[in-house]
Amino acid sequence: MVVETKFARFAALSLDSGSVIEPVEVAYETYGKLNASRSNAILIEHAFSGDAHAAFESAETGQPGWWDNMIGPGKAFDTDKYFVVCSNVLGGCRGTTGPSSINPATGCPYAMSFPVITIGDMVRLQKMLVDSLGIERLLTVTGGSMGGMQALAWAVAYPEAVTSVIPIASTSRHSAQQIAFNEVGRQAIMSDPDWREGDYYGRMKPARGLAVARMVGHITYMSDASMREKFGRRLRGKDGFGFDFSVDFEVESYLRYRGSQFVDRFDANSYLYITKAMDYFDLSAGYGSLGAALEPSHARYLVMSFTSDWLYPSYQSREVVRALRSRNKDVAYCELTSSYGHDAFLVDVAEETELVRGFLASTYGETG
Amino acid sequence: MVVETKFARFAALSLDSGSVIEPVEVAYETYGKLNASRSNAILIEHAFSGDAHAAFESAETGQPGWWDNMIGPGKAFDTDKYFVVCSNVLGGCRGTTGPSSINPATGCPYAMSFPVITIGDMVRLQKMLVDSLGIERLLTVTGGSMGGMQALAWAVAYPEAVTSVIPIASTSRHSAQQIAFNEVGRQAIMSDPDWREGDYYGRMKPARGLAVARMVGHITYMSDASMREKFGRRLRGKDGFGFDFSVDFEVESYLRYRGSQFVDRFDANSYLYITKAMDYFDLSAGYGSLGAALEPSHARYLVMSFTSDWLYPSYQSREVVRALRSRNKDVAYCELTSSYGHDAFLVDVAEETELVRGFLASTYGETG
Repeated sequence: MVVETKFARFAALSLDSGSVIEPVEVAYETYGKLNASRSNAILIEHAFSGDAHAAFESAETGQPGWWDNMIGPGKAFDTDKYFVVCSNVLGGCRGTTGPSSINPATGCPYAMSFPVITIGDMVRLQKMLVDSLGIERLLTVTGGSMGGMQALAWAVAYPEAVTSVIPIASTSRHSAQQIAFNEVGRQAIMSDPDWREGDYYGRMKPARGLAVARMVGHITYMSDASMREKFGRRLRGKDGFGFDFSVDFEVESYLRYRGSQFVDRFDANSYLYITKAMDYFDLSAGYGSLGAALEPSHARYLVMSFTSDWLYPSYQSREVVRALRSRNKDVAYCELTSSYGHDAFLVDVAEETELVRGFLASTYGETG
Repeated sequence: MVVETKFARFAALSLDSGSVIEPVEVAYETYGKLNASRSNAILIEHAFSGDAHAAFESAETGQPGWWDNMIGPGKAFDTDKYFVVCSNVLGGCRGTTGPSSINPATGCPYAMSFPVITIGDMVRLQKMLVDSLGIERLLTVTGGSMGGMQALAWAVAYPEAVTSVIPIASTSRHSAQQIAFNEVGRQAIMSDPDWREGDYYGRMKPARGLAVARMVGHITYMSDASMREKFGRRLRGKDGFGFDFSVDFEVESYLRYRGSQFVDRFDANSYLYITKAMDYFDLSAGYGSLGAALEPSHARYLVMSFTSDWLYPSYQSREVVRALRSRNKDVAYCELTSSYGHDAFLVDVAEETELVRGFLASTYGETG
């Protein structure tokens, strides 16, 4: 099946910073059909570098969606049963308003005049989208990594609109180490002279800085074990060491390739804004505790993490589970065994599929 | 006590690549006195960004040595009993010949015409230094991280010259993940336009690239737990978020500071050459197995690693221990509990001190 990205436009979006973006546009895709009682809608939240194209074949690019192994007929998020919505996040560069969008007030890209945004702002825009689709209550909000943060933020911001939540490989707040890795990426971009304080549109991109940022990211998405299995110390097309600074090892070649590939599809300023939103994320902020933040939520929760994920370690998921349990919420927690590191939620989906399928079926059966 | 760095000069050094450096100079320091039988000499090997100034107060800078908490009267490496030698590695930028040194053939800095070096080359130069000091046999060769690699390389290259070895927080070969982190640092430097293919001497340094490389390094030297304890989500001199891209969090401020500080004391080309030497390091290469490589060694071994060190995880130390055990070598292994990550060998030295002191005393007692 071929799917097209759609767009919704709203007059204005108020931000946590006090700024307002007007107007604001959201790129989104939908799969499956909304049922008559509008009770089968699932909101999929993408991770840092994802987009609205979560499943099926893109009419624009011909590419499968980033979670195509989880979304579709008979899959975990079964599009024969459920109506699935996925939108590009605020601040993104894949159709939703972000720093690369034209500011109608100036006729030029926002660049660094784009206001700093939060996960809460992303979710506020998604609520406008979901409302515009006539959906009062979501069967599930789910996502991995930053997607999980958005899912949790939904439960806190709109408790009456969320029946269940599936945060995967995620956290209720960014740790010092997570902030540190993001800061390195930002510094790599902002150190690139081609970044020009963000005003690079129509000129050379800050390709080198963005590529370095992405290389760091890729290391954190994998595990020591998965890198050992995938690359080890294998050399790239050489009998021995080159004794120079071209590529010796396959892992070097892989990182350089992924870095340069990323430059073609992602905007450096979006990198800055979205990582900043992640770093600001602390679900407990303003509530005194995580439990207090989650108190108004009546949702069911399925929290998942992966054994080899050292970027979003299991203890962060367990913090969420503990807070929910302390408030007597309905929560199941599963730590899945995988060697794939943080990427596991995207690539190692057999067990994830079984757990999501069962959780959704029972949630839908009770409420649908 | 104030110590001065000394220099030794040799006509030529042959390298694993087939190249020759001529002449070559080594910066080194010594502490304590060599005994009459020349049996109390300890060679200290520094880690990636270290130098010859391992202990006491530097006459040049007034600063304490990088392992001053481990070396001195009554300390683990007791300078009242032992004669301690530490030299700056080949390829370094703190007195030993490296890419920033003047190539006598041209009168200009070597820059990228400096040959690519290996850990084996570093050790070969140290052997020349040790020979020149009249030391036939070292009581111990020791060091953390890259220092541990050199210590192991000594045992393999010069089995008759090594009575004992103390590799700490180290490995017998760089893994894909370790290579990947080094490659990111190299790409950050080489992407900086001020790097100019290495020909930046006398001009602007590639300060931004080198700072980003160092920031990545610092994250890997700490642990998730130690970053949480040291920084958490504390903000830097602000009541709330700045909603801009200046510093929000203390951890950001720390990384930026450490990055810019590093630029003042370290040469970007040395960063490239030394990380490459680490990545090339595989003690088993050419021997068929690690055990076979270590077979000729008659040394006693004390291998140490730290629980929270995820950059040089304990399994890498255990691989060395297993290889030694398989060849019936005298080896003790201790995994020390610490939350400090890879930095633990430098900062969390109480238990390390006890273990080294006992190991040295018994080794010296048997052989001294």
